[in-house]
Amino acid sequence: MDISGKWYLETILPDLVMMIRVRNVVYSGKTAYQMAEVLDSEVFGRSLVLDGKTQSTERDEHIYHEALVHPAMLMHPEPRTVFIGGGGEGGTLREVLRHRSVARVVMLDLDKEVVDLCRRYLPRHHQGSFDDPRVDLHYADARQYLQECDERFDVMVMDLVDPMEGGTAYLLYTEEYYRTAKSRLNPGGILVTQSGPAGLLNHRECFTTIYNTLANTFQHTVPYQAHVPAFQILWGFTLASDSVLPRLSEGEIDRLASQRISKELQFYDGETHRHMFALPKFLRQGIQQERRINRDACPVFMV
Amino acid sequence: MDISGKWYLETILPDLVMMIRVRNVVYSGKTAYQMAEVLDSEVFGRSLVLDGKTQSTERDEHIYHEALVHPAMLMHPEPRTVFIGGGGEGGTLREVLRHRSVARVVMLDLDKEVVDLCRRYLPRHHQGSFDDPRVDLHYADARQYLQECDERFDVMVMDLVDPMEGGTAYLLYTEEYYRTAKSRLNPGGILVTQSGPAGLLNHRECFTTIYNTLANTFQHTVPYQAHVPAFQILWGFTLASDSVLPRLSEGEIDRLASQRISKELQFYDGETHRHMFALPKFLRQGIQQERRINRDACPVFMV
Amino acid sequence: MDISGKWYLETILPDLVMMIRVRNVVYSGKTAYQMAEVLDSEVFGRSLVLDGKTQSTERDEHIYHEALVHPAMLMHPEPRTVFIGGGGEGGTLREVLRHRSVARVVMLDLDKEVVDLCRRYLPRHHQGSFDDPRVDLHYADARQYLQECDERFDVMVMDLVDPMEGGTAYLLYTEEYYRTAKSRLNPGGILVTQSGPAGLLNHRECFTTIYNTLANTFQHTVPYQAHVPAFQILWGFTLASDSVLPRLSEGEIDRLASQRISKELQFYDGETHRHMFALPKFLRQGIQQERRINRDACPVFMV
Amino acid sequence: MDISGKWYLETILPDLVMMIRVRNVVYSGKTAYQMAEVLDSEVFGRSLVLDGKTQSTERDEHIYHEALVHPAMLMHPEPRTVFIGGGGEGGTLREVLRHRSVARVVMLDLDKEVVDLCRRYLPRHHQGSFDDPRVDLHYADARQYLQECDERFDVMVMDLVDPMEGGTAYLLYTEEYYRTAKSRLNPGGILVTQSGPAGLLNHRECFTTIYNTLANTFQHTVPYQAHVPAFQILWGFTLASDSVLPRLSEGEIDRLASQRISKELQFYDGETHRHMFALPKFLRQGIQQERRINRDACPVFMV
Repeated sequence: MDISGKWYLETILPDLVMMIRVRNVVYSGKTAYQMAEVLDSEVFGRSLVLDGKTQSTERDEHIYHEALVHPAMLMHPEPRTVFIGGGGEGGTLREVLRHRSVARVVMLDLDKEVVDLCRRYLPRHHQGSFDDPRVDLHYADARQYLQECDERFDVMVMDLVDPMEGGTAYLLYTEEYYRTAKSRLNPGGILVTQSGPAGLLNHRECFTTIYNTLANTFQHTVPYQAHVPAFQILWGFTLASDSVLPRLSEGEIDRLASQRISKELQFYDGETHRHMFALPKFLRQGIQQERRINRDACPVFMV
Repeated sequence: MDISGKWYLETILPDLVMMIRVRNVVYSGKTAYQMAEVLDSEVFGRSLVLDGKTQSTERDEHIYHEALVHPAMLMHPEPRTVFIGGGGEGGTLREVLRHRSVARVVMLDLDKEVVDLCRRYLPRHHQGSFDDPRVDLHYADARQYLQECDERFDVMVMDLVDPMEGGTAYLLYTEEYYRTAKSRLNPGGILVTQSGPAGLLNHRECFTTIYNTLANTFQHTVPYQAHVPAFQILWGFTLASDSVLPRLSEGEIDRLASQRISKELQFYDGETHRHMFALPKFLRQGIQQERRINRDACPVFMV
Repeated sequence: MDISGKWYLETILPDLVMMIRVRNVVYSGKTAYQMAEVLDSEVFGRSLVLDGKTQSTERDEHIYHEALVHPAMLMHPEPRTVFIGGGGEGGTLREVLRHRSVARVVMLDLDKEVVDLCRRYLPRHHQGSFDDPRVDLHYADARQYLQECDERFDVMVMDLVDPMEGGTAYLLYTEEYYRTAKSRLNPGGILVTQSGPAGLLNHRECFTTIYNTLANTFQHTVPYQAHVPAFQILWGFTLASDSVLPRLSEGEIDRLASQRISKELQFYDGETHRHMFALPKFLRQGIQQERRINRDACPVFMV
Repeated sequence: MDISGKWYLETILPDLVMMIRVRNVVYSGKTAYQMAEVLDSEVFGRSLVLDGKTQSTERDEHIYHEALVHPAMLMHPEPRTVFIGGGGEGGTLREVLRHRSVARVVMLDLDKEVVDLCRRYLPRHHQGSFDDPRVDLHYADARQYLQECDERFDVMVMDLVDPMEGGTAYLLYTEEYYRTAKSRLNPGGILVTQSGPAGLLNHRECFTTIYNTLANTFQHTVPYQAHVPAFQILWGFTLASDSVLPRLSEGEIDRLASQRISKELQFYDGETHRHMFALPKFLRQGIQQERRINRDACPVFMV
């Protein structure tokens, strides 16, 4: 391969860097909160990068967004009201809206400029979701909003940027935040959050702490993972509820999905669910050994 | 991260390159067959790279080698004789020898220089396995050896370099080769082969063809995958046999492993097995849609 | 320095690559003739890259363009008509137009799309030169134009892309081309051409051959060089004429420049001239040892 | 060019990085003072890198070492005693010893481990110079040594690593150090020092300050430059003396060199001298505008 040309370099781990050849830089600029870039690449298609971290790409965002949304939604008997924290690309919103039961979605993103960029430049991500009449979109801090609102939700989906030092979201992964969120769940309600990298080499950066913090806050928690190519490594997610999270069989998942979701999914189904929820041994060990609770006063940061 | 210093660049996909900071280049040279490099890095520890492709690293080789060896070995009721094709690092050999039932292992590696390098520089990979009296090590082409030998094996493990154009191994992934190998299996015998990348973006490079070729040659085949960090993407494996491949429950696997394997494994157990054998939807679709059979006359190459 | 972000990689020599951090990709696309990119970088400012080779940058284009234009123009007693081959950025044109004696400039660039890009995106390069009424701009092959025109020129400036295999310009560095060009010079006329890299490690790629070819075609030739940071290495130029090329003293150059050029130059003056025309020993040796003549039938290419 | 393989990345400017493909890492380790690496590359041959900065390479070290040593040596009427500060590779020593007049060389290098590495791994640099009976080699801090010794020298050559923050040498570029050095010069003695990068984009990092500091300390100073490919940019040097530094003509230099130097040089001769001492306009302007004096209390660092 000829090396000449435009590349995007992204730090995956200290001393491990991914070089992605870029076809075009569609947008590059600073918002009030972060550096935002929209890139086109042969490998990943149209991509959103915030503060140097790939958020989602046209080629594989369906893995991340389906993995984030559908387990929580199908474990709930009939999700009608959904809260989304973050998720400016609109992919999470798109997947939530596919559930026929959903009557109302409140979506909070801190950064209006990013959402505007996504609406303009990532049409294949959001697919018009922002225009759905069920959506109530706010540009505000999720934490403050939840503290002040008195609405309650069946499902809450936290699609936030990773907890980076100096970043916009690290206070949205703490025990204090989760207690606030829990207070906004309806009885039987389920919270799910993206939980950072869950690879052999970096699952202790934040994944196990996020899990442990949720396990300390909710009565029931379930961790799971999926491989998202643009993130290079396994990616972690955590479900949390004060009600029992049902163990759905493959057949039940396929049946529920066909009944309740308005479109055939690309990634998620019964067998994929089994793949995601059966954890490699190192992740189970990492969770068992974790003692840290993520608190406002001493937050855990990704490296 | 300061960018200055020594790096290893490895092409993962066309237009996607991994940069790994290198602490030291322990060895770099050409054997009669290939370029061989032994590197030390903070991220992956001591690593073997052949023709620019990372073969295995100290930090995560246990994932690859346990995933390759143990499912086949535990599905067989009592593997006594094992054939290993390739596997110069000695990691596959090490895992095979952990099975108490094993009485004899015939290992073939084409490249004596690579095996010598591994014996010298990768002690934490082989852990002395080459000195086990049950091992019969040959430096020869696996295909020719199998054509000429009249021994039969309970389990055959193909731990070969990927089928690269101009490489040493692409004729060890064809229907013709698999027919030869099958003829060397005892009744009830099982063959397993590493099957190349199985990621969303590249599982059609060779994984689905290898699977399809084996499915055309054997009566029973099962594909599976694991994420090996040094390979960046999901990695594929295929089991093949003319006998039924048993569907072991998690409990059976844990029980069999504790009875038959002389050391607690780091990666593989019942739940990890479930994780590996439940395939993401795109892999199942890729397999269903694959029509190519890999034959000597028109071999499939990795890009 | 944090490695994350957008970079442009440019091959300087085989196995030597320059990484330039890019602030923005202003334009990227294919014209009918070549890949064209306009980049912004902290280091070099607004830059034009054609087929992966930096052509000129805002930060240092004055070195290249002043070095290319002014020695020939000042060695000529009174240049009134000037031919420019290539030079789409308009920097060569800008420098030529600064000479008060100039009444007419015929400029030929093959690629209208590149010239249009430059007019739009490189205003600090051309500084409006294209709108000067003395300019007659054509989009055509310089060789064919010169073969067919019957105009003659006092100075001809060849500001062409390097002679790359498969490129657009390698037939504009051959003996046949130079004979055609010579036939279009007025008596006393001077031709100057950019002559490719003149560094210790690569002056034999094309610089010495271009020099030797001109020395075989014209009665008088003088090579010189300048360091252009964006090219990473010393860069070569060659003057050629059938009249004696005068050896101007530093004082004469400074006096002539102040009389004949309408603006103070940034790079070129008497002492800079001495610096450029006194060649390091290896360049003189390379020229002495060169035997190749660049001909249409067996052109020399840059690596 | 295929990108896979071993590379060395070196920061040239903020946001400008050189990638050099490495054939082998001959040595890599930390001494008591610095990180030391010996690399082999196709482009530059055997190379020494200290703290991530290329010090000299087999392919072009003759440019740097001849440029550093011979102007001062030929401007002195008969250099008999020479002091070398730094220069662990032995290249400066080698060039000094070529002068027939030299009877004694005192060489100081802080880091014995680096000198030992060079003696072992850089034989084509030192060419046995360390074994010359005229050499008196010490491993000590040059500044302290000069403060305490009572010997005086005809020529002093400062071949030190650049003045980096946290580095080993930044106090060897200050006014206080130069006053000490001056006190160790014989009448008519000349000091020369490497003076850091002198390119368009970075000559104000330290070159102009070093020049200005010397001009403030000595009655006569002359700056000059050469392009060293492995440094990517023009490189600066400064001559300083309390006696007049003679303006030698090209002919005188060639005659003196043939009389006084025992071997034909590769880079330096009369015309090369003219090339080096005629400065591009930006360097003269940078020098004129510089007001900083480098003092112990507020040293200037390279970026």
